[in-house]
Amino acid sequence: MADALLDAVRTGVRVYDLSRPYAIGMPQSPNHPVYWHSLPRRHGDKVREDGGSAANDIIVLGTHVGTHIDALAHVSHEGQLHGGVDAGDAQVGGRFPVHGIDQVAPGVFGGILLDVPVALGLDTCDPGYEITPADLDAALERSGAIPQPGDILLVRSGWGARWDEGAAYIGTDSGVPGVGEAGARWLAAHRPRAVGADTIAFEHLAPGKGHAVLPAHRVLLVEEGINIIETMNLEEIAAASLTEFTLALAPLPLVGATGSPLRPLALTSA
Amino acid sequence: MADALLDAVRTGVRVYDLSRPYAIGMPQSPNHPVYWHSLPRRHGDKVREDGGSAANDIIVLGTHVGTHIDALAHVSHEGQLHGGVDAGDAQVGGRFPVHGIDQVAPGVFGGILLDVPVALGLDTCDPGYEITPADLDAALERSGAIPQPGDILLVRSGWGARWDEGAAYIGTDSGVPGVGEAGARWLAAHRPRAVGADTIAFEHLAPGKGHAVLPAHRVLLVEEGINIIETMNLEEIAAASLTEFTLALAPLPLVGATGSPLRPLALTSA
Amino acid sequence: MADALLDAVRTGVRVYDLSRPYAIGMPQSPNHPVYWHSLPRRHGDKVREDGGSAANDIIVLGTHVGTHIDALAHVSHEGQLHGGVDAGDAQVGGRFPVHGIDQVAPGVFGGILLDVPVALGLDTCDPGYEITPADLDAALERSGAIPQPGDILLVRSGWGARWDEGAAYIGTDSGVPGVGEAGARWLAAHRPRAVGADTIAFEHLAPGKGHAVLPAHRVLLVEEGINIIETMNLEEIAAASLTEFTLALAPLPLVGATGSPLRPLALTSA
Amino acid sequence: MADALLDAVRTGVRVYDLSRPYAIGMPQSPNHPVYWHSLPRRHGDKVREDGGSAANDIIVLGTHVGTHIDALAHVSHEGQLHGGVDAGDAQVGGRFPVHGIDQVAPGVFGGILLDVPVALGLDTCDPGYEITPADLDAALERSGAIPQPGDILLVRSGWGARWDEGAAYIGTDSGVPGVGEAGARWLAAHRPRAVGADTIAFEHLAPGKGHAVLPAHRVLLVEEGINIIETMNLEEIAAASLTEFTLALAPLPLVGATGSPLRPLALTSA
Repeated sequence: MADALLDAVRTGVRVYDLSRPYAIGMPQSPNHPVYWHSLPRRHGDKVREDGGSAANDIIVLGTHVGTHIDALAHVSHEGQLHGGVDAGDAQVGGRFPVHGIDQVAPGVFGGILLDVPVALGLDTCDPGYEITPADLDAALERSGAIPQPGDILLVRSGWGARWDEGAAYIGTDSGVPGVGEAGARWLAAHRPRAVGADTIAFEHLAPGKGHAVLPAHRVLLVEEGINIIETMNLEEIAAASLTEFTLALAPLPLVGATGSPLRPLALTSA
Repeated sequence: MADALLDAVRTGVRVYDLSRPYAIGMPQSPNHPVYWHSLPRRHGDKVREDGGSAANDIIVLGTHVGTHIDALAHVSHEGQLHGGVDAGDAQVGGRFPVHGIDQVAPGVFGGILLDVPVALGLDTCDPGYEITPADLDAALERSGAIPQPGDILLVRSGWGARWDEGAAYIGTDSGVPGVGEAGARWLAAHRPRAVGADTIAFEHLAPGKGHAVLPAHRVLLVEEGINIIETMNLEEIAAASLTEFTLALAPLPLVGATGSPLRPLALTSA
Repeated sequence: MADALLDAVRTGVRVYDLSRPYAIGMPQSPNHPVYWHSLPRRHGDKVREDGGSAANDIIVLGTHVGTHIDALAHVSHEGQLHGGVDAGDAQVGGRFPVHGIDQVAPGVFGGILLDVPVALGLDTCDPGYEITPADLDAALERSGAIPQPGDILLVRSGWGARWDEGAAYIGTDSGVPGVGEAGARWLAAHRPRAVGADTIAFEHLAPGKGHAVLPAHRVLLVEEGINIIETMNLEEIAAASLTEFTLALAPLPLVGATGSPLRPLALTSA
Repeated sequence: MADALLDAVRTGVRVYDLSRPYAIGMPQSPNHPVYWHSLPRRHGDKVREDGGSAANDIIVLGTHVGTHIDALAHVSHEGQLHGGVDAGDAQVGGRFPVHGIDQVAPGVFGGILLDVPVALGLDTCDPGYEITPADLDAALERSGAIPQPGDILLVRSGWGARWDEGAAYIGTDSGVPGVGEAGARWLAAHRPRAVGADTIAFEHLAPGKGHAVLPAHRVLLVEEGINIIETMNLEEIAAASLTEFTLALAPLPLVGATGSPLRPLALTSA
């Protein structure tokens, strides 16, 4: 029984990891529980009768640290979640029966990279630069891709190159490049199932303003029902000039949660 | 630029979720930190000037609870990890620079379901039943698939139907069906990159014995270098008589950890 | 400058530990986050240039596990905390600015042991037995103490002897002895600052009913504003026939929390 | 039956809280798991049949954050804990059966404040200033107290006034005042059961050096077997010119842990 997908997989696939490693001390927003990892049991702590021994882990984290995806339940506007759901009612019980991250369908989807600095002839967008619809037009044109409804659109600002700089990547003082409200509407007009970026907050942050207002989150999560992927590593696919690809998306099914850590993968036939 | 994989994806894919939802109180081994989830911030706790509000999560868990994958670093035998790596040396610093879960290559792979109870004409394997090489032969023959090196082989015992029964699923008193040392060697002979099962411990547990000895873990993780996926939901693909498929595998890149929560997906062309 | 308290301390004090040790796997209510402990760093993981090395811990727990004290914020009745405070308003922000555990004054206080089984001529109260006002009268008379307002009254049921039995101590099936509504009113009439008991839930639990209703919590925390200490070890002071003593009480100042782990001490001049 | 201690308590006690509140975002060392708090259940999430509702907490923390006490197991020197105990052996199993924090005897003890800046005629010691034996002599003389073996000696540097300044309190760049090796030996010569200070690391940190070497920890924990209390609030007792007092010390009995959060209290007859 032939299966076109499996045939393509068995013929050979190249995998690009779009995630950042989870490590103690990695840059993350101070709004969220800090990632920590420990080995409660190490080898030799308890040796079985046959000479076997196991080590294990405990991890603690927020679901909006490291590479992660926002559930629609993450953001409300004037008391309402997407679709007019009352946010107060939805969170009774301490988990969201609607719009939780476990409601996001996992799978493989079309993915498109909108490489803004390349389209603008830059190495990277300036800190605090708001990526405009015209920039996105230019990036899309350069990509040669035609977005389909249900695709995943990734906006590269170049800021990801600062991941290893720690606090600089968070960008509280400098600001962080990204789309604003207008860019979010441009993205939403293509009906993606999700959008992503190479920064912690996805959207443009003005210098020194932090997360005072997040209009792109409002547009995407609340108005349009589109999930947001943050803290992505888009450097490798940019270096490979990859613009259209298969994107594998499998959030953890954390019942009623507002987000999930994520290992998104870009895939191409080898 | 045509890409066979993306073409197959855009033509249509059916997704089967092979994971169990993460929820407080789910069945898990008492050896590992218990899954917990809370919303530190709920909508309305802090409303931004523009009417926006965000809810977030904290999660605490072991990496061997819920559907998860074992890193090679998880198990040692007589002080050695796979490849003769000294376990004591490898764990200095509290994370494994070799054989950690972040060393597992994510991607899409060939997947094969070995449905043992169906091959044996049973609804489910008995508690404590050790699945034999002959059973696996029968299941493979029935599947019609030919395993390729690097595939992922999933062994269904039928035990997953008890997931909703809580303590019964853990099976401390009853025992749990699964392969033993001989079955593990059968699996390893096909050179899979990973194997999986629908039980917490992957391998056969005799009634009342718990995890006193885990020979299949030794064979697979230590001797053969093959990762193990546990607590999978194989009921849906069994019901669909799916035997060969694409399997998407994307463990979280938890630096130096012994395992990771996992959302494995079985995929077919629609 | 003479200080009577310090003089008494320097003359000699005997200390009775009224707490249970915190260990992985200890009995605790399934309603609360499970206690876990791990050493993220062990000696030798990172050795300083001078030969020094440090080990450290991560702990995860609910504040109502192990020996602990309930803040008034822990329980509401028909939407109100003690003093008519609106519970919904008080918890906005995810911590209680009123009635949180950090609002409890720490210090040393008068403490009285009401040893019910001894007063009744029993080894221990039966599972599910509701301790009556008459029982408390008998225990108080036997103690010879005269409660002062602001004292701490400890009710021993004898159930604490089962601490080492694990699930039996939780008593879901058997029920657990303790005061009910009438006993709580008896205690409150003495105007204690806090009350305590040797069981997980402080109050009487009928067999198989669990925590369906908790009238003593309502009376003490909501109506009367009296903190509750649970899972105490009263066996040692009972064995010593100690009935009136100094009780040191120092909850952790967890800002806005509903409870705290606690190491209560009974103290006498040696 | 008269009890001098209880008589003193019933006559009236004044309580001085020597701890800092535990709150998300409080200053803490980056070496240790970050304090986090959340309410998994809030009032109204689950209302019992009688109108009752409970809120609860989850907390995550290192045991060396906030006001806390170091167990002897916290620090080793050239592979040995206090008394020549092999550190590697002692930590097998992931908890310390010897020198763990649960081995520290709780109780009420004599306490003495060594107020260094007051003795030196300063508001506060300079950042990075190493408090000398001569300074401690001056502070002790000024206190008028005579230390007894088993007392607790508290060294005030004045640095605690910066608690509310966040990162400044940690003092990575500026350095932090405190005793060095010589001061630690001075303290140890008085045979205290514990010593404390108003800084995160207890001892002097040179500017920009961080925790590269910690000689006072070595002297006290490893050589002398004396516990260390850190991040104390000594401002209130300094303002009250309190120099000798009763000190209540009740670490949590965390089995095998290297430290514990602590609510130390200074007590005087009113």
